[in-house]
Amino acid sequence: MKRIYFAGSIRGGETDREVYRRLITALAEVGEVLTAHVGDPSPDEGRTLSDHEIHDRDLAWLRSADLLVAEVTSASLGVGYEIASALAAGVPVYCLHRPAAGRRLSAMIAGSPGVHLIEYSEPEEAVASLRLALP
Amino acid sequence: MKRIYFAGSIRGGETDREVYRRLITALAEVGEVLTAHVGDPSPDEGRTLSDHEIHDRDLAWLRSADLLVAEVTSASLGVGYEIASALAAGVPVYCLHRPAAGRRLSAMIAGSPGVHLIEYSEPEEAVASLRLALP
Repeated sequence: MKRIYFAGSIRGGETDREVYRRLITALAEVGEVLTAHVGDPSPDEGRTLSDHEIHDRDLAWLRSADLLVAEVTSASLGVGYEIASALAAGVPVYCLHRPAAGRRLSAMIAGSPGVHLIEYSEPEEAVASLRLALP
Repeated sequence: MKRIYFAGSIRGGETDREVYRRLITALAEVGEVLTAHVGDPSPDEGRTLSDHEIHDRDLAWLRSADLLVAEVTSASLGVGYEIASALAAGVPVYCLHRPAAGRRLSAMIAGSPGVHLIEYSEPEEAVASLRLALP
């Protein structure tokens, strides 16, 4: 079973979180999602783990993953950091982007030769495209 | 003379751009700023360079730099990507954050052991702190 690291903007709005939840549900049919909490961030997390602990835990998960699936419609420092960290570690990167949201994707992501870019409107359609793109 | 790669959110608002311009002016006293266009993005850039060309040019500048100075108050996929790419390439990383803007910094940046974090309110003060922090 593939180990999937899912990345999304933690500080995205309610629309983003609903999209993330649907993506995570669909991804669970493809493999084990290591970061299912991204769709439903616990308000307690920041109180029990330091930033260093969150960073080290997430980077260890990322490096152990078979692929990174990053939702890149909303701007996020953490997601950009995770994409470049995955590429540096040799973990395949799939980025999902909703053009209908009207936000142009950063050239550093859209132009990165290691990034597989999937444009979509419905989360289930994105995961179906991802399945076809996987080796 | 130190070669400085300055990173900021290209799609930040007018407040960000004014801060970037002041940071770049102050950084020019410390070294050569390779990416001075971040403070004043040309509307023509997207028409003359492809995303791949922008990515490859910026990454080549980043890898040739003596340090990365990243303004991290606004969310940005590109800035997050540049921070992790610099760390992977062994380029020292200094992140500048304005707590007064009220946006909590991503744990992946605040908790990254390779990141030197400088909090500030005035750009000239941030660059003075940076000078003191440089080896």
